[in-house]
Amino acid sequence: MPELKIGIIGAGRIGRIHAENIARFIPQVKLEGIADIKLSDEQEAWAKGLGARIVSRDPGDILKDDGIKAVLICSSTDTHADLAIRAAGAGKHIFCEKPVDLSVPKVKAALEAVKKAGVKLQIGFNRRFDHNFARIREYTLAGALGGVHIVKITSRDPEPPPPAYVAVSGGIFIDMMIHDFDMARFQAGSGITEVYASGACLVDPEIGKAGDVDTALVSLKFENGAIGVIDNSRKAVYGYDQRVEVFGSGGAAIADNDLPNTVKISSASGVTGEKPLYFFLERYKDAFINEINAFAEAVLQDKPVPVSGEDGLEDMYAALAAGLSLKEKRPVTIAEIRASYREK
Amino acid sequence: MPELKIGIIGAGRIGRIHAENIARFIPQVKLEGIADIKLSDEQEAWAKGLGARIVSRDPGDILKDDGIKAVLICSSTDTHADLAIRAAGAGKHIFCEKPVDLSVPKVKAALEAVKKAGVKLQIGFNRRFDHNFARIREYTLAGALGGVHIVKITSRDPEPPPPAYVAVSGGIFIDMMIHDFDMARFQAGSGITEVYASGACLVDPEIGKAGDVDTALVSLKFENGAIGVIDNSRKAVYGYDQRVEVFGSGGAAIADNDLPNTVKISSASGVTGEKPLYFFLERYKDAFINEINAFAEAVLQDKPVPVSGEDGLEDMYAALAAGLSLKEKRPVTIAEIRASYREK
Amino acid sequence: MPELKIGIIGAGRIGRIHAENIARFIPQVKLEGIADIKLSDEQEAWAKGLGARIVSRDPGDILKDDGIKAVLICSSTDTHADLAIRAAGAGKHIFCEKPVDLSVPKVKAALEAVKKAGVKLQIGFNRRFDHNFARIREYTLAGALGGVHIVKITSRDPEPPPPAYVAVSGGIFIDMMIHDFDMARFQAGSGITEVYASGACLVDPEIGKAGDVDTALVSLKFENGAIGVIDNSRKAVYGYDQRVEVFGSGGAAIADNDLPNTVKISSASGVTGEKPLYFFLERYKDAFINEINAFAEAVLQDKPVPVSGEDGLEDMYAALAAGLSLKEKRPVTIAEIRASYREK
Amino acid sequence: MPELKIGIIGAGRIGRIHAENIARFIPQVKLEGIADIKLSDEQEAWAKGLGARIVSRDPGDILKDDGIKAVLICSSTDTHADLAIRAAGAGKHIFCEKPVDLSVPKVKAALEAVKKAGVKLQIGFNRRFDHNFARIREYTLAGALGGVHIVKITSRDPEPPPPAYVAVSGGIFIDMMIHDFDMARFQAGSGITEVYASGACLVDPEIGKAGDVDTALVSLKFENGAIGVIDNSRKAVYGYDQRVEVFGSGGAAIADNDLPNTVKISSASGVTGEKPLYFFLERYKDAFINEINAFAEAVLQDKPVPVSGEDGLEDMYAALAAGLSLKEKRPVTIAEIRASYREK
Repeated sequence: MPELKIGIIGAGRIGRIHAENIARFIPQVKLEGIADIKLSDEQEAWAKGLGARIVSRDPGDILKDDGIKAVLICSSTDTHADLAIRAAGAGKHIFCEKPVDLSVPKVKAALEAVKKAGVKLQIGFNRRFDHNFARIREYTLAGALGGVHIVKITSRDPEPPPPAYVAVSGGIFIDMMIHDFDMARFQAGSGITEVYASGACLVDPEIGKAGDVDTALVSLKFENGAIGVIDNSRKAVYGYDQRVEVFGSGGAAIADNDLPNTVKISSASGVTGEKPLYFFLERYKDAFINEINAFAEAVLQDKPVPVSGEDGLEDMYAALAAGLSLKEKRPVTIAEIRASYREK
Repeated sequence: MPELKIGIIGAGRIGRIHAENIARFIPQVKLEGIADIKLSDEQEAWAKGLGARIVSRDPGDILKDDGIKAVLICSSTDTHADLAIRAAGAGKHIFCEKPVDLSVPKVKAALEAVKKAGVKLQIGFNRRFDHNFARIREYTLAGALGGVHIVKITSRDPEPPPPAYVAVSGGIFIDMMIHDFDMARFQAGSGITEVYASGACLVDPEIGKAGDVDTALVSLKFENGAIGVIDNSRKAVYGYDQRVEVFGSGGAAIADNDLPNTVKISSASGVTGEKPLYFFLERYKDAFINEINAFAEAVLQDKPVPVSGEDGLEDMYAALAAGLSLKEKRPVTIAEIRASYREK
Repeated sequence: MPELKIGIIGAGRIGRIHAENIARFIPQVKLEGIADIKLSDEQEAWAKGLGARIVSRDPGDILKDDGIKAVLICSSTDTHADLAIRAAGAGKHIFCEKPVDLSVPKVKAALEAVKKAGVKLQIGFNRRFDHNFARIREYTLAGALGGVHIVKITSRDPEPPPPAYVAVSGGIFIDMMIHDFDMARFQAGSGITEVYASGACLVDPEIGKAGDVDTALVSLKFENGAIGVIDNSRKAVYGYDQRVEVFGSGGAAIADNDLPNTVKISSASGVTGEKPLYFFLERYKDAFINEINAFAEAVLQDKPVPVSGEDGLEDMYAALAAGLSLKEKRPVTIAEIRASYREK
Repeated sequence: MPELKIGIIGAGRIGRIHAENIARFIPQVKLEGIADIKLSDEQEAWAKGLGARIVSRDPGDILKDDGIKAVLICSSTDTHADLAIRAAGAGKHIFCEKPVDLSVPKVKAALEAVKKAGVKLQIGFNRRFDHNFARIREYTLAGALGGVHIVKITSRDPEPPPPAYVAVSGGIFIDMMIHDFDMARFQAGSGITEVYASGACLVDPEIGKAGDVDTALVSLKFENGAIGVIDNSRKAVYGYDQRVEVFGSGGAAIADNDLPNTVKISSASGVTGEKPLYFFLERYKDAFINEINAFAEAVLQDKPVPVSGEDGLEDMYAALAAGLSLKEKRPVTIAEIRASYREK
């Protein structure tokens, strides 16, 4: 079997997930190196334990290594674009965690560099690889739903992030709903043309003070004529609520939450089952594996990546449009956002 | 539309249900008379309010009326057989609540009279007409399950009857599980050949003192080679638990309980839905209507009744076999029970 | 038991439902009269069969009868307001099918007349009395959901109406979604302040030619700060899709569709259950009974009606705002609509 | 963290599962050696790839290694008892796949050797560690079900084994239902006292020719007074059907099957979801990990193993009793089986 030799830049939470998944579950990928500018002794031992040949505080050690064909950029968001440009310059294929950057021009610069270098770039929208959501898309592609009319996405976190995080997060649309914009485009099989956002601060007033909302609902129009809606909450007391519904001329497909077990207990007070799996690490465990497998296949078989840099840019436009819509209390087209960056 | 003119004997709970169902929901049946040997003033007013032409304390007033073509025998069990014989003698078609009698010879005598008179006799095993259980049977008859291999019936009451009732009830197999024996034969599409009963007194020691068990499990063999099991409890704290499963070479059909509503509430302590509908009046509300409609059609269109007197006798044999099995701690064949009554 | 003597004006589909429900299931209401300006012989026989004392082609015969204390207005929409005014003038309490009128000034005139006469007016938003949706509201009122943050309503019909009907229906918001606006206000426990509508003609181009959309999604803001969304389709191939979800600080309550039975069949191709109950007659069967019982109680016990004329007016404002939003591609406040009618 | 160094004997399917689970998921266990008397080159490479220090065709190489503290016996059933005796003699703790042997005296000899050596022996009844079934037991232990009254176990395979396998398997009770006897004792929290078995050959006549049944139902009595039932089929067309229900004085807990995803598709022909996970490798994936973790904890912390050699023997008695019951068409007590081996 051909094997993709990769290096990982960034040994934080998501970097570790990818590294361990590759070591355990992804035989077609070989972990050659791990770099983190703040690599701790503990991280160093961990990286060596996984069999990494290069363990370093300098991402350049990964980028300049001839044996490494692809990099996973898992460092902090503000470093994504620069690292992507450097990696492209070094001729490495790139898997980059979302978002590429909070600044559209920097994203565009990275995409330009990738294009020029002729390398592949996949963005880490892992939810497309979820067993439930991928199954819905399969139904749609198989024609089981007919033409898509309505896409509905529910996405609620079990706990809000700390207000300090909220302040630098780019806001709920960039930080949280961007996943759902990507899911919406994926399920609709079509680009978003317009959004209208409602939002409120109902969970934690501190989030409001940080200039953000914690509850949001965005209605969507798609290029293919379908319509849709996404709702987000920063706090669902029953856990991570991740559901998708696609309704079409031939039927509807609905994905419910995953549960830790199927047991239902019938008692004098009702019939009770489990709450959803707690958060994204539990829910999207397999999706993280699947997305790396898909990236490896795209590189090894020279196929298009399933989530391109352009996808990441489109999702960002949708998030920016939602933010503007909320601020100006009007529907905002993606064309308007796109145009605003063309002029700059 | 042809109309079946009927009289009801017995104005207790089940008689009232049938009378009101006929008045409200069953246009092809006309309620002509109601008789109850202990008819109260309140019952008399109620019966007249329903439009009954004959309201009497003498069942004979029903039986001798030429306009009435069929009777519903809803009086106490000990009067069923005699009334059935008298009704047959009067040329009336008969719908008789279960059981026909606790004594096999009396049941046989009633069946003989019915046969001789050439009238129809349907026994009130209403559960065959339940929307869930009838749907399973439809699947089986349509071939969707292939050949039937295993039949599983769960039947648990929300509350035990008073010990005084238990003492005269004939025991759990005659009083409660007889419905399930009928369901088992209905779903298997085949007679029962052998039973083996386990039982225990786990709910209420008073039931044990009355000579009965309150928890029972009976394994079944059917003529067609299928096997099965019924479990009964006199008390499920979560309400009336009525489920059926039929497993065959082509698949399985499972009927879950009916609920008062579909709402599920997700909270920090789990996802909770409603308990099953409380008891047989709620659960089998429509089944009581459906069985009378089926009886009326059998009479009006001169078709076989869906639950015959022979069915009632077979169910009783199964119940008696289960009682003997429990007592003697051995499997008991229906043939053994049947033979024991042939000799007598 | 005190009894409410009523007359019904209009013997079409909904009039017949109410009449038969009253005769069968609602002992506290007595059906005294039925009038329909086009009463057929068949309808006359039916009305007499139900025991109506007055059967007439002149609604005035109902309105002038001293024995009748309340009327159910079930005639065509264009007659509702006039009949309500006449009934109020005659001192009758009024149950009026929705909408009171397609013209706001006519609705206001009717409400004015009702107010002046001091009679009660209940609007036929039956879904508030559905066992599922009422249960959600009970949870909310009991505090089980905490404060309401998001309300989501799915409402899809099994078949579109004929294009000819669509042309005179007032459009999808007035004709179909008005039920959902009422449900939204009911579940939020709060008025709607703003709507933003998306719509498309995806089911039947003839509906588009008639000037309407057949697929619509409206996002909502409520006075209490909650947000919401309603989606409608004129055609769901799997039947009548009626679901509600309320999400709050303490949890979420979700009502799924009602099914004709609980059976699931497991076969080589999956595990399949029933489609939802076909349409509103099946789904809201009990809700039609419950709403008349609630009306009778409001009158007999001199309590406020559960769905007032003002509710009907608010729902209409929401529908008009949605129509304007769709047309002008902008969010529209209820205040704007309300103001536009104040000036006139 | 203390670490348990183990060797695996047998590199067939189950040996590979344990070896890979240990390498990937069980940090507290270190795989030191793998031996298989028929080790292929491919297996050798695989074993070395997992980091095994000892890779051999001689189990003795594992047993004599001082660094290895425990062995997993995953070889063919006929070698289990001898290897267990040798391992005990070598002072190794033992995890042994089920059954220890098909011969009770050989099982007893192995248990005797284990006892004498003072080592731990855990039997591979992995289903006790299933997330669903373990959850039910937790409910029972927490008192949520009150006293246990009825235990129901459904266990059906997706495909029958080849008839040649059936002929040497020991029969359905030893080969297949033994897992369910163990589950029954686990869920009842009590030993089995009596079984009554029904069986039929309904799936494949070749199984009948091999002297076995392919469909079986066994009713159970437990020491604590509870009753139960197990049903088995060698072929469920919809896949691996593994369900457990425990009913008690305080309620019921029911575990449904696991599904590959939660998607339900509503179409004109019904609402369809996925079939259960295909077979035991998919369904009990995590249970295989959990049981090794539990074994490691028992050894490292010197606690009792969760499934002892005596458990294995009790399960075998139940299976033998079921076989005798089926043959002699009578209920058979465990005491009778136990006594029959005492005499020998």
